[in-house]
Amino acid sequence: MDNYYIAIDGGGTKTDAVIFSTGGQLINRVIGAGTNPNGMDFNQVTEHFRKLFSELMSVKKPVSIAGCYAGLSGSDHPALTRKLANAIKDACPVKISHLQVGNDAMNALWSGTDGRPGLVVIAGTGSIAFGILDNGKYFRMGGWGYLFGDEGSGYAIGRETVRRVLMVYDGRERETTLISALTRYFHVQSINDIVPIVYQSSKDVIAGLVPIVASEAEQGDCLAEHILFEAAQDLISLIQNGMSKFESVPETVLVGGVWNSRIIREKVCSGISAPFIFPDYPPVYGSIAKCVNEWEYQNEGLLDSLKKQLIKGKPA
Amino acid sequence: MDNYYIAIDGGGTKTDAVIFSTGGQLINRVIGAGTNPNGMDFNQVTEHFRKLFSELMSVKKPVSIAGCYAGLSGSDHPALTRKLANAIKDACPVKISHLQVGNDAMNALWSGTDGRPGLVVIAGTGSIAFGILDNGKYFRMGGWGYLFGDEGSGYAIGRETVRRVLMVYDGRERETTLISALTRYFHVQSINDIVPIVYQSSKDVIAGLVPIVASEAEQGDCLAEHILFEAAQDLISLIQNGMSKFESVPETVLVGGVWNSRIIREKVCSGISAPFIFPDYPPVYGSIAKCVNEWEYQNEGLLDSLKKQLIKGKPA
Repeated sequence: MDNYYIAIDGGGTKTDAVIFSTGGQLINRVIGAGTNPNGMDFNQVTEHFRKLFSELMSVKKPVSIAGCYAGLSGSDHPALTRKLANAIKDACPVKISHLQVGNDAMNALWSGTDGRPGLVVIAGTGSIAFGILDNGKYFRMGGWGYLFGDEGSGYAIGRETVRRVLMVYDGRERETTLISALTRYFHVQSINDIVPIVYQSSKDVIAGLVPIVASEAEQGDCLAEHILFEAAQDLISLIQNGMSKFESVPETVLVGGVWNSRIIREKVCSGISAPFIFPDYPPVYGSIAKCVNEWEYQNEGLLDSLKKQLIKGKPA
Repeated sequence: MDNYYIAIDGGGTKTDAVIFSTGGQLINRVIGAGTNPNGMDFNQVTEHFRKLFSELMSVKKPVSIAGCYAGLSGSDHPALTRKLANAIKDACPVKISHLQVGNDAMNALWSGTDGRPGLVVIAGTGSIAFGILDNGKYFRMGGWGYLFGDEGSGYAIGRETVRRVLMVYDGRERETTLISALTRYFHVQSINDIVPIVYQSSKDVIAGLVPIVASEAEQGDCLAEHILFEAAQDLISLIQNGMSKFESVPETVLVGGVWNSRIIREKVCSGISAPFIFPDYPPVYGSIAKCVNEWEYQNEGLLDSLKKQLIKGKPA
């Protein structure tokens, strides 16, 4: 008889969940509301999980779930992790035999290593390095947020870009095509008009400058290129420090929108000699891989079958 | 018959005002509530000025005021400057024959130059350079706030300090005595416990780290010294860029708490060859000097007499 598993990747804005069977079938995939407990109460978190499980099992409702791995943002503290596990148990309409809750960075790592130990460096709006050693111990590095950390992140690149174009306006930097690119992005006449706007902008809006900086750098703007080089240097430093915790060079997974910049990717990959992995699959695949490795003897055929369905299936 | 003048230095948290006569008498000095129009309505601003003038003229109420210079924070835009001028006129119980409202950075400059043109670099919680050229034109540089500017400021130094001690915690920097200094400052057990605290702290609390960093650097901590050197470099760059707007080396006034750090002061003064002025008098003296220079033919005897009374008088 088939076993059934649930894999969850939970963030602040959305939660991605998959139910699959050891028969090799990806039964359903649902993307629901965010389940980060910071900023909402636990009744609401439980309610979000309840809705998610209800939709997930609308196609097929097994008698029980053999295992569930949930990688959730905001589960850094042991007390919170326990409460999140309880919320999942309360919300699930059938019994879960084995449940593990961990950091969402684990999913990102495993989506590139198929569930094996290694290092992941996430550079999205924020940045963090997360590693799992061969002995199972794990560590984090960075990720201290937009004011006091997140080196090399999209927000850090966007903030530095705003800072530097204001220095150009002050006459403290050479001319740059970033000025006209940013006046277009923020829909202003004069570049100093962005000041009240950037202070009211969300971190995503500031991080949204990365593709613009990348594009101007590709077209030869020196300041844009310099900003990307500095970010790449910060990421190289983060990766090297993360690697130093391992006895041998770890599989290193690079995840997040900043890696879409060719200049940053090439600078980092030529600056460090290591086997880098840019995952083809979404983070929830990391959770799937962990379930299979943990409770199904690293069944590679099963993983391959699920991978194919994950790419074909929607939502993307 | 004596002329009477009012000199005002207005900030976000307090407004410093002086009434003096051409007979050489500093008649009264009052420190009242802040009058920065950002974050309060204009009726309230007018009311704060009304109370200030009422106290100021409680010792002696002249028939009229020959001139008033008000250097006010938050008066960057012409529309705001006009509204502030109207608030002062409405609030003053006697007629002001000549009224000028300008940026509070002008007071800081003139407190060092006795009302003459020149460059001022303010490095307090924030940082800004402000210059008045010989032709009377003025410019600002920097001062774009805590996220996108304020290089070399107390907040920038404090933020960098927090960022670096978290990197030490991550194993990305060498050991430093800043760790124990910061755990004491924030009253925490472990240095990573400062994270939620620093995100909720005011900018002044973060800038309040400067004397701690300075003290640890004086005692030989390499990281603390490095952080101050970097800030000094940012300030050197700001000063050099400001100076480049002048035809010859300007009188350069350095104002704000960051300059209390001996290491920063020495690094900057040895890095740039120029006559630096660290004013002995409070910013409101700059406004006094401007009144005397503008409307009393640069009467140096009058200025000297007022200076002496300003130092003796209270409040400090």
